[in-house]
Amino acid sequence: MAMGGIIMWKYIKKLEYPVNIQKKNLEMAKVLLAQYGGPDSEFGAAMRYLNQRYTMPDEKGMALLTDIGTEELAHIEMIATMIYQCMKGATIEELKEAGLCGQYVQHDHAVFPVDANGVAFTSAYIETTGDWRSDLESDMAAEQRARTTYEHLMNMTTDPDILAPLSFLRQREIVHYQRFKELKEYYENKNNINK
Amino acid sequence: MAMGGIIMWKYIKKLEYPVNIQKKNLEMAKVLLAQYGGPDSEFGAAMRYLNQRYTMPDEKGMALLTDIGTEELAHIEMIATMIYQCMKGATIEELKEAGLCGQYVQHDHAVFPVDANGVAFTSAYIETTGDWRSDLESDMAAEQRARTTYEHLMNMTTDPDILAPLSFLRQREIVHYQRFKELKEYYENKNNINK
Amino acid sequence: MAMGGIIMWKYIKKLEYPVNIQKKNLEMAKVLLAQYGGPDSEFGAAMRYLNQRYTMPDEKGMALLTDIGTEELAHIEMIATMIYQCMKGATIEELKEAGLCGQYVQHDHAVFPVDANGVAFTSAYIETTGDWRSDLESDMAAEQRARTTYEHLMNMTTDPDILAPLSFLRQREIVHYQRFKELKEYYENKNNINK
Amino acid sequence: MAMGGIIMWKYIKKLEYPVNIQKKNLEMAKVLLAQYGGPDSEFGAAMRYLNQRYTMPDEKGMALLTDIGTEELAHIEMIATMIYQCMKGATIEELKEAGLCGQYVQHDHAVFPVDANGVAFTSAYIETTGDWRSDLESDMAAEQRARTTYEHLMNMTTDPDILAPLSFLRQREIVHYQRFKELKEYYENKNNINK
Amino acid sequence: MAMGGIIMWKYIKKLEYPVNIQKKNLEMAKVLLAQYGGPDSEFGAAMRYLNQRYTMPDEKGMALLTDIGTEELAHIEMIATMIYQCMKGATIEELKEAGLCGQYVQHDHAVFPVDANGVAFTSAYIETTGDWRSDLESDMAAEQRARTTYEHLMNMTTDPDILAPLSFLRQREIVHYQRFKELKEYYENKNNINK
Amino acid sequence: MAMGGIIMWKYIKKLEYPVNIQKKNLEMAKVLLAQYGGPDSEFGAAMRYLNQRYTMPDEKGMALLTDIGTEELAHIEMIATMIYQCMKGATIEELKEAGLCGQYVQHDHAVFPVDANGVAFTSAYIETTGDWRSDLESDMAAEQRARTTYEHLMNMTTDPDILAPLSFLRQREIVHYQRFKELKEYYENKNNINK
Repeated sequence: MAMGGIIMWKYIKKLEYPVNIQKKNLEMAKVLLAQYGGPDSEFGAAMRYLNQRYTMPDEKGMALLTDIGTEELAHIEMIATMIYQCMKGATIEELKEAGLCGQYVQHDHAVFPVDANGVAFTSAYIETTGDWRSDLESDMAAEQRARTTYEHLMNMTTDPDILAPLSFLRQREIVHYQRFKELKEYYENKNNINK
Repeated sequence: MAMGGIIMWKYIKKLEYPVNIQKKNLEMAKVLLAQYGGPDSEFGAAMRYLNQRYTMPDEKGMALLTDIGTEELAHIEMIATMIYQCMKGATIEELKEAGLCGQYVQHDHAVFPVDANGVAFTSAYIETTGDWRSDLESDMAAEQRARTTYEHLMNMTTDPDILAPLSFLRQREIVHYQRFKELKEYYENKNNINK
Repeated sequence: MAMGGIIMWKYIKKLEYPVNIQKKNLEMAKVLLAQYGGPDSEFGAAMRYLNQRYTMPDEKGMALLTDIGTEELAHIEMIATMIYQCMKGATIEELKEAGLCGQYVQHDHAVFPVDANGVAFTSAYIETTGDWRSDLESDMAAEQRARTTYEHLMNMTTDPDILAPLSFLRQREIVHYQRFKELKEYYENKNNINK
Repeated sequence: MAMGGIIMWKYIKKLEYPVNIQKKNLEMAKVLLAQYGGPDSEFGAAMRYLNQRYTMPDEKGMALLTDIGTEELAHIEMIATMIYQCMKGATIEELKEAGLCGQYVQHDHAVFPVDANGVAFTSAYIETTGDWRSDLESDMAAEQRARTTYEHLMNMTTDPDILAPLSFLRQREIVHYQRFKELKEYYENKNNINK
Repeated sequence: MAMGGIIMWKYIKKLEYPVNIQKKNLEMAKVLLAQYGGPDSEFGAAMRYLNQRYTMPDEKGMALLTDIGTEELAHIEMIATMIYQCMKGATIEELKEAGLCGQYVQHDHAVFPVDANGVAFTSAYIETTGDWRSDLESDMAAEQRARTTYEHLMNMTTDPDILAPLSFLRQREIVHYQRFKELKEYYENKNNINK
Repeated sequence: MAMGGIIMWKYIKKLEYPVNIQKKNLEMAKVLLAQYGGPDSEFGAAMRYLNQRYTMPDEKGMALLTDIGTEELAHIEMIATMIYQCMKGATIEELKEAGLCGQYVQHDHAVFPVDANGVAFTSAYIETTGDWRSDLESDMAAEQRARTTYEHLMNMTTDPDILAPLSFLRQREIVHYQRFKELKEYYENKNNINK
């Protein structure tokens, strides 16, 4: 790599799922921030899973959290791309009308990790207890909340360019939920814990 | 990839620089948190650079921010590993004595993105303005602060297992500073801006 | 009631479970704050459940959240009493030695809703999505985390006066988890949702 | 009680003052949040008074703070009911127009403890010093601010269904102010403190 | 002085640059908050520089930080005056339409240190490391971001009463940037540090 | 002035009350932060009063808030000087022992606006409602809390170099309380408000 040294993450210049929004949509730009820097955002998801890895009971758990955490990094990228495309070329007048003047004054057309109301991301949104049951239940709950947020977002638009990646992302959350659930049950059986 | 779909980040199971701390060191575990979830932490660095990419003036700028942001993801991993190894096997009695009872009760031996006082990470620590000069000056300043923090950390220990990766990380911040400075000067020259 | 009008909550001057700590224990006072104003605290629990009631699908769900939320109010009271008794009569010298000088200077011997590191409670710790599956999964996860926190607290002391109420509270979290789980499964069956 | 054990709070299924808002009013839903999770909210009030009880000089002070704190719990309930009724049946289109798209995406039609701008509640809003003069002055000031907020809210609507409970709540703050003032003067006289 | 004693700051009843906004402008009131309590606000600037003084290497550095920090206090005053004048005489109906109902309910026509989205000021926005290079680079970056914010604000209005003070303030940030740069270079030369 | 232009604040290089602490005292450095960046700190006081000026009913009120706000700026300076002198020359070993390793790693020997637990200052600590009664009651309460905090600080040391300025500052809070009270009563009489 150009920067020297060996690194742990390799960036592949291709989105997990194509994002190609043709029509400016400031309203969606604003609410998509919920999934960028909000309580149940992809940022929070990546941080939560990558962070919990170290105290999983075995390699199996660590691997799953690494896999899903890595995928969430890709989802951050997708959401950022969507917000950026939704705002692209918007005039100041348009940003004003969309209630995005706070965004414009503080960040221009740049993406910033806040929620849909402009509130900064905080690690208070995530959980890591060192207990696999608590952590995996927290992960399952987080995936359900992310699914709900994607459904709310999908209810707000009819643009297929926006709906397609949102639908893909919602589907991934359902898959992640299942994976976390299977892992929890695997550990419960292994430890003879009555679910 | 096992999870399905194409993703943008590939996880390589190897630290950028080897971390192999043999001796438990709870004092260092506590202060290393400054570089995990603190104001000038690696978490903040990765978020700052990856976030600013979209509004850089050209591919050259985007590429540099992607490269350095990606490397910072690897540094998060190194710091997490260091904290984890520094705490490994610590008894409750030892955690108490090291002033880590808050850590134990809320997170056990798990790593969590807070600063050295236990305060949650917030995106209020980072900056993205949509203006390349402001953003690159912010990046240069952030690298200087990270360098300073590494120097403070190095002043707190004599353990070579801890000093070596810290020294490597400090060196990387200096290299990043130079890269950001060169990019800023490149854009200044291109735009005939008097530095 | 003395204050006039009809109110919805009636205060009964009796703790849900007796708290009678005879021996000053500043170390425990400090860490018990995790359950008073911390991320997985009783304060958060009461706020979470009472807040989610309104969008539960039916009376059954509303009733359960009201019941458990009301009980959590009683748990706040128990934790406050425990912290107060653990700090009672402590001299400034003793508070200093226990790392509670920040507590003393800012709050004297009073209880305040911060976590074990002195960080203020925030509603960023809780979740309400308007979706019963997301909310009930969040509640189940919250109960698991509270259970874990109680286990960590119990690992820190051998005083039976402290252990007995902690053990009672831990047990209640397990019961709450079961209740939330049963309610979630009841709604899943009713809606033919494959768990 | 169904949950087992003896609890300290009994929930009575009746609002302190009837809330029966017939007409959807999203603008009011938004600003009523100021009294739900804002700086001078009912949530803050309940937390402030219930929290300060333990260090009041005698039973008289503890009893007053318990009484008023308990009543504020009932006020939280009233405000939540008002917000819920003001939002009931609102379509996504209506929520968008009212600037509540952040609310919808993150919480749907559920009530959440944020202020009128969507900022999370924090215990940084409340005060507990362990000194009765400081605490009672803080309580008096808090009641004045709550009164002011209710006046602002009343200035924003002409709907009698909304005005009536707001007027009742405003009146209660005035009564609470008097009670706190009387208690402060009682302690000042008892301690020969020149007001 | 009327209050007794000798004080360190003398208030001169005259703005650094005249502010005399004739035309109500609620949109600008809202976004000017970015410079009052936002991330790169004058409040943050004054706090940052006055705070860093103590660890500058010599009198020269301390003097510059005192000078600029003192001037930023004057800028806080200018911005507060501008916001106040922009809101003066606004009816509730007008505040509602401008998306300032949160402002009205919580602060009426008063100025409050929040950002353009209503989020509270936090010292997490500023930096002080005890290292002159880090601090001066942080100051340079902060001045660039403040310049950018002023440019964004100027792009939002054509009112000369608002543009003139904004233009003055923007110009001051450029001068400050130069001063910080010169000081940094002076110290670098003195310490034979390769820039 | 060297920086050009006319400014509103003039800095006089003399502390309101002399601070000359001869003996290093890291314990006091830590707790003095409560008065620097804590909930009832001098920073909060200056911000609160200077911020409330604009909506006072007349010149009399504005003048008092300006006077006291200006004096609080001088108090910030005194507290910063005290903390700096208490930490001066402390070795890393000494900072570690005093529980100030978080301070060292993140800020070295520099002063930073956090509370005694290392939590960032937030404007959530202050109040401005646009209503003179609410604001003046809030100011009176704030002065009482500041007085209490100074008393707690004085209880923690016997060093006359530290006690003298603390005693002076405590005394000023009592004077400020009286002034705010007189102003409130003046307005109450003028408006025939029954206290």
